[in-house]
Amino acid sequence: MAKQATWYHGGCDVCVSAESTLVDALNPQQFRVEKVNLGTNRSRVGEAEKLGVKTLPALVIDGQVYHINFGANLADLK
Amino acid sequence: MAKQATWYHGGCDVCVSAESTLVDALNPQQFRVEKVNLGTNRSRVGEAEKLGVKTLPALVIDGQVYHINFGANLADLK
Repeated sequence: MAKQATWYHGGCDVCVSAESTLVDALNPQQFRVEKVNLGTNRSRVGEAEKLGVKTLPALVIDGQVYHINFGANLADLK
Repeated sequence: MAKQATWYHGGCDVCVSAESTLVDALNPQQFRVEKVNLGTNRSRVGEAEKLGVKTLPALVIDGQVYHINFGANLADLK
């Protein structure tokens, strides 16, 4: 069964560019990727914070957080 | 045909942890991933630098550099 991966981003250019290449590169047979724009969906900022997300964009797989390049601080969305 | 992706790392714990989950999550039908340990293979530090790698670990896909979390500065390996 495909595992859940979550891509948290802020809708910025860095995030969108990383999304189009990197996130779409994940093996679709292994992962179901949910893309969450925290800029427009601020109710999920707390969830991302609890998972350990500090900067955006970030990818969470199996509870591990990967901060990828740098687009924005999560704190700036609060 | 599978595209080339290159994973540059320094052999540190952050790198190894990211490698096991994230790099192995890439779609094997789309990407051939080469893993380069710059700690033991310093002759390739210059190549990574030219591609724009600044910190390790980093993943390069299609000429785009993704700096993932933070393990080491490339400059420290020179």
